[in-house]
Amino acid sequence: MTHPLSRRHFLHAAGAGAASVWIPKPVKGYSAAEMRRQAPGGRLEAGISKWDLDTPCLCVDLDRLEGNLDRMQTTVTRNGIASRPHAKTHKCPAIARLQIATGSVGICTAKISEAEVMFEHGVEQILLTTVNVSPRKIRRAMYLRKWCDGFVQAVDTAANARELSDAAAEAGVVADVTVDVDPGGHRTGITPGAPALELAQLVDTLPGLRLRGMLCYDGGSQHVTGFAERRRRALANLEAAADTADRMKRSGLDTGIFSGGGTGTYNIDHETPGMTDVQVGSYVFMDAQYLVIGGEDDEEVYSDFAPALTVLTTVLNDQYEGRATTDAGAKANTINRPWPIVAGETGMSYTSGSDEFGTIRYEENASRTYRVGDKLELIVSHCDPVVNLYDQLYGVRGDRVDVVWPIAGRGMSI
Amino acid sequence: MTHPLSRRHFLHAAGAGAASVWIPKPVKGYSAAEMRRQAPGGRLEAGISKWDLDTPCLCVDLDRLEGNLDRMQTTVTRNGIASRPHAKTHKCPAIARLQIATGSVGICTAKISEAEVMFEHGVEQILLTTVNVSPRKIRRAMYLRKWCDGFVQAVDTAANARELSDAAAEAGVVADVTVDVDPGGHRTGITPGAPALELAQLVDTLPGLRLRGMLCYDGGSQHVTGFAERRRRALANLEAAADTADRMKRSGLDTGIFSGGGTGTYNIDHETPGMTDVQVGSYVFMDAQYLVIGGEDDEEVYSDFAPALTVLTTVLNDQYEGRATTDAGAKANTINRPWPIVAGETGMSYTSGSDEFGTIRYEENASRTYRVGDKLELIVSHCDPVVNLYDQLYGVRGDRVDVVWPIAGRGMSI
Repeated sequence: MTHPLSRRHFLHAAGAGAASVWIPKPVKGYSAAEMRRQAPGGRLEAGISKWDLDTPCLCVDLDRLEGNLDRMQTTVTRNGIASRPHAKTHKCPAIARLQIATGSVGICTAKISEAEVMFEHGVEQILLTTVNVSPRKIRRAMYLRKWCDGFVQAVDTAANARELSDAAAEAGVVADVTVDVDPGGHRTGITPGAPALELAQLVDTLPGLRLRGMLCYDGGSQHVTGFAERRRRALANLEAAADTADRMKRSGLDTGIFSGGGTGTYNIDHETPGMTDVQVGSYVFMDAQYLVIGGEDDEEVYSDFAPALTVLTTVLNDQYEGRATTDAGAKANTINRPWPIVAGETGMSYTSGSDEFGTIRYEENASRTYRVGDKLELIVSHCDPVVNLYDQLYGVRGDRVDVVWPIAGRGMSI
Repeated sequence: MTHPLSRRHFLHAAGAGAASVWIPKPVKGYSAAEMRRQAPGGRLEAGISKWDLDTPCLCVDLDRLEGNLDRMQTTVTRNGIASRPHAKTHKCPAIARLQIATGSVGICTAKISEAEVMFEHGVEQILLTTVNVSPRKIRRAMYLRKWCDGFVQAVDTAANARELSDAAAEAGVVADVTVDVDPGGHRTGITPGAPALELAQLVDTLPGLRLRGMLCYDGGSQHVTGFAERRRRALANLEAAADTADRMKRSGLDTGIFSGGGTGTYNIDHETPGMTDVQVGSYVFMDAQYLVIGGEDDEEVYSDFAPALTVLTTVLNDQYEGRATTDAGAKANTINRPWPIVAGETGMSYTSGSDEFGTIRYEENASRTYRVGDKLELIVSHCDPVVNLYDQLYGVRGDRVDVVWPIAGRGMSI
């Protein structure tokens, strides 16, 4: 990490809201305990050791988080593009504001409700990467646009563009729009080439809309194992989109935004001509799914970013040979694979297939065994859906809880 | 259903809190709109058609829910045992109060935080089926016991029993306790026979504790396919626990509670000698995992209970051959298998492997196809973890939203 964020920097970045939950050492006028008493409910744990937290709970290592932000920003800046991190990963306004304060041009959200929450918490540059198709959601989006100048909405059909234009006119705004282009996965977006170009031209002519460019998220390439193969696949999948962006530009259309990419391709995407920024999400936390894909310098482990997110859990039962039961099951970890990794230990596996309980199984060479009441930390399988299970995130420095961040976007799937 | 719950019955059952969110047709003094304006935020949707709800959202068919409650209660009453439904399934105080009002002797919870929430919402008979092992959680449990006479705590080691007794004395209470007995899965509980008997005897002598009996939850039998095999397995797995209960009784120990069983074995568990009640959960909602296990009268489909719980979702993209994309992915459905079932349709599959999007794939004989903006309902895969993703549950009668129930226990995994 070349320039770790100072605490002062953090306080500035996270804004007054977050600063008020930062519980420092006793300062004149107030003891730490008195300051904690002033904090709203649910934030009372700041200042204590993480090992004293009730479990299961979600922790982020602040040194690692800051290192990950720095690594991402340094790399994309060097490569001549920007970062526009996806807030669907963390759903946490404090982290969104840290990202913007350390150089990101804005954030992405997956849902209108997520965008609303981020705006309520002071985030003003928001790209909603999903189309809104129901009249009610379209109205919500245009109402947000009325107050949030930096709100940009994705669109992928002509009919939807017309509906959006009408709703914008009704709300008294001209709405900023990007065309969502399909990278070949056929999940969302319009087909690149003539269809996308025609849609961009339509958006450009509709009275309620202002074309800002396009987005093309190639989810299928992000977890390809091996850097060379991942690079080959990502560049190939984005060729048609890049050609479309070029044709848009030559047609005089705005291509100020050409957003795509993710944590797996953040150091590849600048090679796609015209791409302006990466919608990286998981890099802030990392997870077991990304650790195994391998990186440019490390074929075995994707070590560009450090695992910062853990679920803290307590052993409830040690009565049976070769195993132990903990209090973190599927409702604390999801059932994504690979299963969570026990941080700092070897020779044991952890499964969370049961709703309420996790199971540790020891191999012959287990680095340790656990007794009832012992706590351990799990590196989660896939960070996005795990974060979505928790209302708060404990920001930890060493063993001490320094901040308690509300996950205000938790459950905002609408 | 022999005696469907009347609306009057419902209002009585769900108590004043739930009654205040019930939005009837216009009544003298207030229009429906005026009543809705008086309702707290998030409950504004009562009275509208479910098809107008923003998606993804969670709906329960009230007729089916009431039918399921009735079927369960009628059956266990006929079999001479009681129901003590597990609230970890619904996490919804309104449903817990309905269960108690229609004959259940109390509810179970999996976590102390769930128990606290249920007590806050007027539920007074609570069996916490999981041990608390950390000093802080033990204190929380004893504080709850101080105010909640009907709170009973599970214990499965002598050390834990002593800690609990000390904490009870400190809180100035005598805590009601059941011994948790392992049915053979080795996940939680003490080994049946001598170890369990000794623990029960210890509990009986400790000054801060009052023995109330035992529990033995045989999760492994619940989803065994085929009624005959399920019955054989469930009865075999509980033999040792039943023998332990008998020895406890002959030793003069209290066996007033011998709780176990679940939705898959609700009409089998009364055959286990001494069993007093079933900890049934999923029967209120049903799900795709239970539908396939087959029942006593229907070998193909477990039709004892009706699928009442659905996720409502909207089609976002129909541009690609043979498929469509909706707005309900893993954050709305989890990734449990079998995948969700599209309610009322045939010849199509639904997968929710993506965090934010669901994918419909049509077979040749698909009963219909969807256009952008169309809404559809999904029967969820496994109800417990899906409910845990949502803050509210729309109670629907026909197509009309009649109540909006807060899922107050959502995220209460601590």
